[in-house]
Amino acid sequence: MAEVNVKILNSIINDGDRILIDKIDDSYLSDALGRIKGHADVVLFPVNVDEVSKIMRYAWENQIPVTPRGAGTNLVGSTVPVEGGIVLDLTRMNQIIEFDEETMTATVEAGVVLADFQEYVEAKGCFYPPDPGEKTATIGGNISTNAGGMRAVKYGVTRDYVRGLEVVLANGEILWVGSKNVKDASGLSLKNLIVGSEGTLAIITKCILKIIPKPEVTLSVLLPYRDVKTAIPGVLTIIKENANPTAIEFIERDVIKLGEDYTGLSFPYPKAGAYILMTFDGRSLELEGNVERVKKSAIKQGALDVLILDSEELLMNVWKIRGCFVKAVEAVSEQEPVDLVVPVNKIVEFISYVSEYEKKSGMRMIRFGHAGDGNIHLCMVRGNRSDDKWEKELQEHLNAIYQKAFLLGGLTSGEHGIGLSKRIFYLKETAPQNLELMRQMKRAFDEREILNRHKTYLA
Amino acid sequence: MAEVNVKILNSIINDGDRILIDKIDDSYLSDALGRIKGHADVVLFPVNVDEVSKIMRYAWENQIPVTPRGAGTNLVGSTVPVEGGIVLDLTRMNQIIEFDEETMTATVEAGVVLADFQEYVEAKGCFYPPDPGEKTATIGGNISTNAGGMRAVKYGVTRDYVRGLEVVLANGEILWVGSKNVKDASGLSLKNLIVGSEGTLAIITKCILKIIPKPEVTLSVLLPYRDVKTAIPGVLTIIKENANPTAIEFIERDVIKLGEDYTGLSFPYPKAGAYILMTFDGRSLELEGNVERVKKSAIKQGALDVLILDSEELLMNVWKIRGCFVKAVEAVSEQEPVDLVVPVNKIVEFISYVSEYEKKSGMRMIRFGHAGDGNIHLCMVRGNRSDDKWEKELQEHLNAIYQKAFLLGGLTSGEHGIGLSKRIFYLKETAPQNLELMRQMKRAFDEREILNRHKTYLA
Ligand SMILES: Cc1cc2nc3c(=O)[nH]c(=O)nc-3n(C[C@H](O)[C@H](O)[C@H](O)COP(=O)(O)OP(=O)(O)OC[C@H]3O[C@@H](n4cnc5c(N)ncnc54)[C@H](O)[C@@H]3O)c2cc1C
Ligand SMILES: Cc1cc2nc3c(=O)[nH]c(=O)nc-3n(C[C@H](O)[C@H](O)[C@H](O)COP(=O)(O)OP(=O)(O)OC[C@H]3O[C@@H](n4cnc5c(N)ncnc54)[C@H](O)[C@@H]3O)c2cc1C
Repeated sequence: MAEVNVKILNSIINDGDRILIDKIDDSYLSDALGRIKGHADVVLFPVNVDEVSKIMRYAWENQIPVTPRGAGTNLVGSTVPVEGGIVLDLTRMNQIIEFDEETMTATVEAGVVLADFQEYVEAKGCFYPPDPGEKTATIGGNISTNAGGMRAVKYGVTRDYVRGLEVVLANGEILWVGSKNVKDASGLSLKNLIVGSEGTLAIITKCILKIIPKPEVTLSVLLPYRDVKTAIPGVLTIIKENANPTAIEFIERDVIKLGEDYTGLSFPYPKAGAYILMTFDGRSLELEGNVERVKKSAIKQGALDVLILDSEELLMNVWKIRGCFVKAVEAVSEQEPVDLVVPVNKIVEFISYVSEYEKKSGMRMIRFGHAGDGNIHLCMVRGNRSDDKWEKELQEHLNAIYQKAFLLGGLTSGEHGIGLSKRIFYLKETAPQNLELMRQMKRAFDEREILNRHKTYLA
Repeated sequence: MAEVNVKILNSIINDGDRILIDKIDDSYLSDALGRIKGHADVVLFPVNVDEVSKIMRYAWENQIPVTPRGAGTNLVGSTVPVEGGIVLDLTRMNQIIEFDEETMTATVEAGVVLADFQEYVEAKGCFYPPDPGEKTATIGGNISTNAGGMRAVKYGVTRDYVRGLEVVLANGEILWVGSKNVKDASGLSLKNLIVGSEGTLAIITKCILKIIPKPEVTLSVLLPYRDVKTAIPGVLTIIKENANPTAIEFIERDVIKLGEDYTGLSFPYPKAGAYILMTFDGRSLELEGNVERVKKSAIKQGALDVLILDSEELLMNVWKIRGCFVKAVEAVSEQEPVDLVVPVNKIVEFISYVSEYEKKSGMRMIRFGHAGDGNIHLCMVRGNRSDDKWEKELQEHLNAIYQKAFLLGGLTSGEHGIGLSKRIFYLKETAPQNLELMRQMKRAFDEREILNRHKTYLA
């Protein structure tokens, strides 16, 4: 790979503030965890698609590695520049270009921050359902990781809201995939290939997103249970009974404890061993019916109580605690977050396995996640292990845990992506033919292999 | 391309009933319209994935063209074997393999007929939302064309219900893409590339489909309007007001007339110039609220009346007439069906254009379609034109019509696919870089280019 010529880059981006060469802050060389650090020759902050195109053409011609990044909030090392070259930061491309109420779409630049977009859309009486936990992430990052979040049970994931994308190919060509049209049976869905591709196929510069009317009301319901093994089967019944919840989260008591300590707030019904936290949204009438249905079946299925979170304070406490887990763990120890997914009817078996394995291994494994879609988050907690011991034990335990998930038909990542840190597990899980096909897709998009090298499915 | 060796094929499919060599019925050489006819050396009816794999390996090694087909109900010539070789008919692979209520999925062979599957699922109290008009189509065909149908407004299209696929590659390799997991952020979505690929990338042999709980009630509502130009804007308001209809169809009066003649039934409110036909489903309470909302806004928007189709007879008449259009047209004349899509806010402009153009051109252009998603069906009616005149005029008029649609941001196909007969328009609409990328995807999947040659995006 060649060296970067700053003069040429300066001629593309004619603004010293948008080129970092010396003293590149570590945050541009890593992800949200900051554990794995790469190196780069330059960080560029383009403000329009032409700049992106020129940068890519330059990189292509000179075979310079390019690592695209949004807000860098990923947890899997997917923005770590492993071979130097250019870090391409899209955060200055942050304009909302169009809000089209007639087609119920919004067109935004890739660097628009999720929180800003949600706020903008809601101020217009509309709603953008994807709601991954980290609101400082960019829309381009969300699309590149096919981000999930809690509302996925009812509304689906980011993929389901991407109508069209403007992308810049590795060689600098600009093209559109998808469109404002609702239906599309015209040729291969390149759009769907790019969604979730973690920066390996193309740079996303603009996004046409589907929006929907804003639900009139939202309501949270907390179901305390004796333990997680009684809690989860109830979830399956609720899904089958068509109560149409927006989110179904499960949380074990010992995780709550961490959150309480971190926030200084307290969580209701402390006697329970596990909780199911649900939200509902829609029209009040519908909601009432659905909540009524859940009440009945939950009690039948062993819930200790049904708490409607109708006080402002209670609601805030519960969601603040639910929202802080990753940070609460981080505050006490280094951790490795796991984001695997299993078929919903395997959650109990998987959680039971981890809970046994935790005891056996002596490594704390904090569990919580999206019970409605089998997406389980584990925090593998380092505690006071030495570097060597942590490295060694972590790999061993992760191996065991992913193996169990794969045996149950699960996948490495439900919503965070594969990046760098989940790659070895992903490569194990995935059939060689599938990997080979993906790598051929890569070759078609980026023959010179300059985009996000060695990430995800790449060798 | 090489010749077919029947001996070898006999050793793979050891059953004379499942190999057609002489007297190949024309129906295997065409689509539902039967206008374009290809030729084939042999039609094979495999009953399991191993047979499919062996056939493909044989075809691959000998570079023999293979045309996959389900029920052959497509309207775009996509099952026409243009270069001889093997027609691979999947209809004998028609087993429902698993109904998994816990994960709310069903696993079926690709040749399962849509009507059979819908019936099976509904008998279990569940629901498979995709509902394209032709119920004798196969699930594999539906997936290969990303079939739509009327319920798409609320429920989305076939793509949205495909969790996983077992496929056989052109070289005979068998692999799975996707899985029972609800969420997936693990690598490139090969599954989404295969959905809608019209038999050009791989043979689909098994399908894991998402099912949902069955809606309690369904209700149809008919809104008569003075003309289509007043009808369509009402639709946009209804979508925005979140009344959540399952289907929103528009029909002009002169089309109704054809349907009445064909069925011998009569359609209500004959004074109207155009109709919006909607369905709603869900729980009765929800439904009532939604229908109430539509009533109010429809009258405000110029509907002449709001007819709740609550009598069995009325309901049947209306839907029988709506369901027969293609056949009703076919009964009076040869026709070319068009299935384009425009952004929903461009429907009126497009329809007005066609209506003007119809007068100018003297060719009858029957219009109806899915107003909720901009998917417009036109039947270009031949009448008593001679072969030459029909060929010439049809191409000229289609050119004009597609050009208008593209100008409005539309696409060649909303749900039928491109196949052979829409190819020239699709190739015009699509940017060269997009086509090139698709062709490279093709090369990755099928380097020897034996699968469904010359279809869709292919040269
Ligand atoms: C506290 C916390 C909670 C989180 N909760 C969730 C959650 O609930 N659900 C969830 O899904 N994720 C969650 N995440 C992970 C993270 O926020 C998401 O992966 C997010 O989508 C990343 O967006 P980003 O803008 O930060 O992208 P980055 O981290 O900058 O990049 C992510 C990947 O996308 C690529 N990329 C980014 N922008 C572009 C572009 N414009 N074009 C091409 N490639 C691009 C990068 O190369 C990289 O591979 C959480 C993270 C944290 C720290
Ligand atoms: C009266 C009528 C009404 C219709 N209404 C609608 C409608 O409302 N919505 C709609 O979307 N369509 C509609 N169609 C079109 C048609 O029914 C759909 O395209 C359907 O999905 C085709 O399914 P099939 O099994 O007949 O596939 P075929 O016609 O046999 O094949 C279609 C394409 O899929 C490929 N294919 C089929 N099976 C496989 C497989 N197992 N593996 C790989 N490739 C395969 C073929 O090569 C071909 O390219 C209608 C057709 C008719 C005749």
